[in-house]
Amino acid sequence: MAAVKACNILITGANRGLGLEMVRQLVEVPCSNRQIFACCRDPDSPKSNDLRELAKKHPGVIKNIQLDVTDEKSVKEAAKNVGPLLGKAGLNLLVNNAGMAILGDSQTSTTEDMLTTFNTNAIGSFIVTKEFMPYLRTAAKASGTPGMSCNKAAIINVSTIVASMACVHEIYTMIQAFPYNVSKAALNMMTVLTAIDCKPEEILVMALHPGWVKTDMGGDQAQIDVQESVGGMLRVMSGLTEKQHGAYMDYTGKTLPW
Amino acid sequence: MAAVKACNILITGANRGLGLEMVRQLVEVPCSNRQIFACCRDPDSPKSNDLRELAKKHPGVIKNIQLDVTDEKSVKEAAKNVGPLLGKAGLNLLVNNAGMAILGDSQTSTTEDMLTTFNTNAIGSFIVTKEFMPYLRTAAKASGTPGMSCNKAAIINVSTIVASMACVHEIYTMIQAFPYNVSKAALNMMTVLTAIDCKPEEILVMALHPGWVKTDMGGDQAQIDVQESVGGMLRVMSGLTEKQHGAYMDYTGKTLPW
Ligand SMILES: NC(=O)c1ccc[n+]([C@@H]2O[C@H](COP(=O)([O-])OP(=O)(O)OC[C@H]3O[C@@H](n4cnc5c(N)ncnc54)[C@H](OP(=O)(O)O)[C@@H]3O)[C@@H](O)[C@H]2O)c1
Ligand SMILES: NC(=O)c1ccc[n+]([C@@H]2O[C@H](COP(=O)([O-])OP(=O)(O)OC[C@H]3O[C@@H](n4cnc5c(N)ncnc54)[C@H](OP(=O)(O)O)[C@@H]3O)[C@@H](O)[C@H]2O)c1
Repeated sequence: MAAVKACNILITGANRGLGLEMVRQLVEVPCSNRQIFACCRDPDSPKSNDLRELAKKHPGVIKNIQLDVTDEKSVKEAAKNVGPLLGKAGLNLLVNNAGMAILGDSQTSTTEDMLTTFNTNAIGSFIVTKEFMPYLRTAAKASGTPGMSCNKAAIINVSTIVASMACVHEIYTMIQAFPYNVSKAALNMMTVLTAIDCKPEEILVMALHPGWVKTDMGGDQAQIDVQESVGGMLRVMSGLTEKQHGAYMDYTGKTLPW
Repeated sequence: MAAVKACNILITGANRGLGLEMVRQLVEVPCSNRQIFACCRDPDSPKSNDLRELAKKHPGVIKNIQLDVTDEKSVKEAAKNVGPLLGKAGLNLLVNNAGMAILGDSQTSTTEDMLTTFNTNAIGSFIVTKEFMPYLRTAAKASGTPGMSCNKAAIINVSTIVASMACVHEIYTMIQAFPYNVSKAALNMMTVLTAIDCKPEEILVMALHPGWVKTDMGGDQAQIDVQESVGGMLRVMSGLTEKQHGAYMDYTGKTLPW
């Protein structure tokens, strides 16, 4: 089976849910020199126990990094700490996974709800991308092979189907998450534009919907479990080339309409 | 020629550019009992001279209202002042026109750029819509006719073609307005969701692209002048029915892809 062979990988929101499962599945793939920078905002808190346990089992591979995507200082600090560990290889794969949802409709949502979700889901990914861009550039240059891939240099923005103006209707009539949907539509636009900006440097950028997944965010009623979602996402990621640059896909590889 | 016959109309950012021209063209249409609430953040400043002059020529029709879309208190105050003037007819037409642009790409834009544009273009329209919703509801109920129209009860969000993930590529390679494009994509999602929320009450909601227009924002190189843009937008608006509820169109009536 195809696998993501990226050497240096950074994942935000890696202490639970999809982020943690992604670390789990990536660490199982035999890959020399792999470093997984598993970022979370409270690495020492009980909510990061599972990640700390996992890191203990894979010393040297998993590095637990403090990173709050809404705190520019914390992101800069993380970049400063991770940079030297990346060395000449740079950062091959950045997964902007950290996210949060607030429910409400256009009348019940507050300005604060709108700002909190936008700060985390849109600006958070924006800051992380910006601060780690130098290392992604290093990786793209170091690779020596033309074209784009997740093994060379790539940014995966974890999006959602409810960021799609074309698809959101059906779901919104069941689950009103106005602030969340708006912030993720903003993230989709960021993906499209960052892809344009990154094209000359051959850094792949795309948006990936994990499916409706049983996590704290997805809830018990969700359609699939984290194993299936992350398995699917990694399969999709392993097959990405410059043809999917700027794309919006789901965990099965289907392209979604904007 | 078809014309917008809405009785009570509120327009944000009405002191210059497209907002001012919309007031100008609307006041020319003979329409009994028409009140145009021309909102701007600094009604007494020199930059609102043209609007004040126009209002003086049409006393009783044009009401100059203080409203800063980024200041929730100011929006609430405006709603409190406008409410009694609307009476039982309610507000027939709300045009969320106020907007601002910040240039930059995914690397040069700052967090502050992202927040400032999101606050004005997305949250601004969100707050105004929320605070004036009770009056739009009054208008929808008062109308007595089924279906949707700009004469009954409608929200027009002034969007842009660069809010379209499908269309933005070509323009972004010439004009990098990362923060602006992201904020307007967010506004498009707000339009889609607010349309779903407003459907039962028969309040029409849609997004309208004015074209690339010679204003302070559009610049001298723009393709059309304000007369043509606003003439087109009002023509489109006059023809809107429930079929265009939740739509994304330009000033010529063409539907845009998201
Ligand atoms: N589950 C679904 O059905 C679904 C569907 C579509 C898209 N998604 C997307 O998938 C991604 C992961 O979601 P999930 O289902 O795994 O959710 P989850 O179980 O709620 O986990 C969210 C993760 O994001 C982290 N996070 C939140 N705010 C953060 C911040 N300011 N800084 C750093 N980390 C932060 C959380 O850390 P803490 O533990 O510190 O809170 C946690 O690790 C999100 O982007 C979500 O929008 C999920
Ligand atoms: N011109 C184009 O080519 C073009 C293309 C696509 C979309 N649009 C959209 O069309 C709308 C009007 O643009 P325009 O071309 O007329 O731009 P403009 O000439 O720059 O006018 C912008 C208007 O918005 C007002 N405004 C800005 N921030 C505000 C705030 N916080 N509260 C209240 N009012 C505020 C301004 O008031 P002040 O005088 O106080 O600053 C001004 O009246 C905008 O939404 C814009 O995004 C324009």
